Amino acid sequence: MLFAKAEKRVYVNDVAVRDGFQSEPEFVPTEEKIGLINRLSRTGLRKIEVTSFVSPKAIPNLRDAQEVMAGIERVAGVTYVALVPNERGCERALESGVDEINLVMSIGESHNLANMRMTCEQSLEQFRRVMELVRGSEVKVNGTVATAFGCPFDGDQPVYRVLWAVEQYQALGMHSVTLADTTGMAHPRQVAELSAAYMDLFSKLPATLHFHNTRGMGLANVIAGVDGGINSFDASLGGIGGCPFAPGATGNICTEDMVHMLESSGFDTGVDLDRLLAIARDLPQIVGHDVPGNLIRAGKRDELHARPATA
Amino acid sequence: MLFAKAEKRVYVNDVAVRDGFQSEPEFVPTEEKIGLINRLSRTGLRKIEVTSFVSPKAIPNLRDAQEVMAGIERVAGVTYVALVPNERGCERALESGVDEINLVMSIGESHNLANMRMTCEQSLEQFRRVMELVRGSEVKVNGTVATAFGCPFDGDQPVYRVLWAVEQYQALGMHSVTLADTTGMAHPRQVAELSAAYMDLFSKLPATLHFHNTRGMGLANVIAGVDGGINSFDASLGGIGGCPFAPGATGNICTEDMVHMLESSGFDTGVDLDRLLAIARDLPQIVGHDVPGNLIRAGKRDELHARPATA
Repeated sequence: MLFAKAEKRVYVNDVAVRDGFQSEPEFVPTEEKIGLINRLSRTGLRKIEVTSFVSPKAIPNLRDAQEVMAGIERVAGVTYVALVPNERGCERALESGVDEINLVMSIGESHNLANMRMTCEQSLEQFRRVMELVRGSEVKVNGTVATAFGCPFDGDQPVYRVLWAVEQYQALGMHSVTLADTTGMAHPRQVAELSAAYMDLFSKLPATLHFHNTRGMGLANVIAGVDGGINSFDASLGGIGGCPFAPGATGNICTEDMVHMLESSGFDTGVDLDRLLAIARDLPQIVGHDVPGNLIRAGKRDELHARPATA
Repeated sequence: MLFAKAEKRVYVNDVAVRDGFQSEPEFVPTEEKIGLINRLSRTGLRKIEVTSFVSPKAIPNLRDAQEVMAGIERVAGVTYVALVPNERGCERALESGVDEINLVMSIGESHNLANMRMTCEQSLEQFRRVMELVRGSEVKVNGTVATAFGCPFDGDQPVYRVLWAVEQYQALGMHSVTLADTTGMAHPRQVAELSAAYMDLFSKLPATLHFHNTRGMGLANVIAGVDGGINSFDASLGGIGGCPFAPGATGNICTEDMVHMLESSGFDTGVDLDRLLAIARDLPQIVGHDVPGNLIRAGKRDELHARPATA
């Protein structure tokens, strides 16, 4: 039976403020970002990826990383995460008081070269130097294996290469790992197989799955992951962001849609869905356009309609 | 492991020409319908729901039911299905030479009253009279249990009520059954549980699952159904149709997205996905607006991109 091995508790991490706002055509004002993070902090989310300490030239939309970190109200129990591409970013992140640093390497070499301008070997060398900077602090480090379910240039990646990357991360002392479907190539059987292999080898290293809905399979992959024993998932409020390759294609899976599915299916996400939905419904006004999420249009499954008058 | 009990062969039925075009604001010309059915007939779909023999006053968009049936080229191996609301519709359907009649009853009494203007008891009585009309012919009858995963007015329906309806259909001599999530309320655990109960009791009565993507869970529910041993699914080209309750909400799950997910996950749908995608990409021109499907925007997961030039 589906979910026979699944834990009841599933953790939800939101990436909208970083991954979503990063790819918006317009800069989202710092106060809007801070306001959104503060509201999200009170919904029961486990982690919020709040910004990226990249060069303001590379990603102007996140040029306010320090101001955002300085402006938010920290809520106990919420981990505030920042993406960090290099040592300089790590130093800025540490100064800003982040709880967790997220390091990203694509195991598709072509994608890593295109995205990070480094080979995988160079990425791992840099991660080593970042780990040195973090050592002695309370800050946690999460390692993301990007293109874990396929590279848009190199195609499918063998399972052993994903596991090799996880092993490298573990050896570097990282505290947790994210397997990311960077361009929406993951399919449910692949997720089931990779989850099983991961849990066989690394069950003590906390894992998160990060899916995109580019080809409509995002929530199906969450189900495959939960069934495979993974208990932590990234998603993005309203389904914004996620570097879609094609215009009109959706990127990240939608947080409120995922929470609704999981809670309906009897899982405990710890998230107050009504509160999350209210925030999601304000998102189109913040970004100035519609967002891909379904639940903000359709409402929850248990919001019944009045019976129509019949003859 | 996910899919441990699943068969490799999964059957796909398309409902776009009936369910999709029925709810379009504009009448789709008869020749367009015929052309689309003829193209779909050559993709490997198992069934095509081509029209509904309802009153032209009730659904003007399908007033050309006879002309459509008379105009299409029948391809061997494809079952041409028509929805039939009553005896008069059944007579017209039989005259038109359909392969299969689809009868629908909502097990949510309020929904059945609103949709069919009958109690469930009256619906079953009418089904009995329709079965009499069909007796002696080669025509098959499929019984749809609508609102099987919840009624928008009455809420969740107990599993035993779904199974009661299936038992009634079986006793009436129907050849197959569809469990339909009429308004997108199904969630994966419910699908797993209902599929298991169905297969325990009715494994010899062929079953189809019909999901909507109203709340984003459509393809996740397909995965739960396949995992539960069900091997036949309805979907709609481009994801059109499906009576969404809220404006902007999607209805039926998208055929090409579903086929892509299933084929990626190693299932054999018998469908030529490239051919299906080509037809789906022509659909916006036929209906005059964008359609919800993802794959027509993003392309298949194995359509790789050229490596970018890197320094």
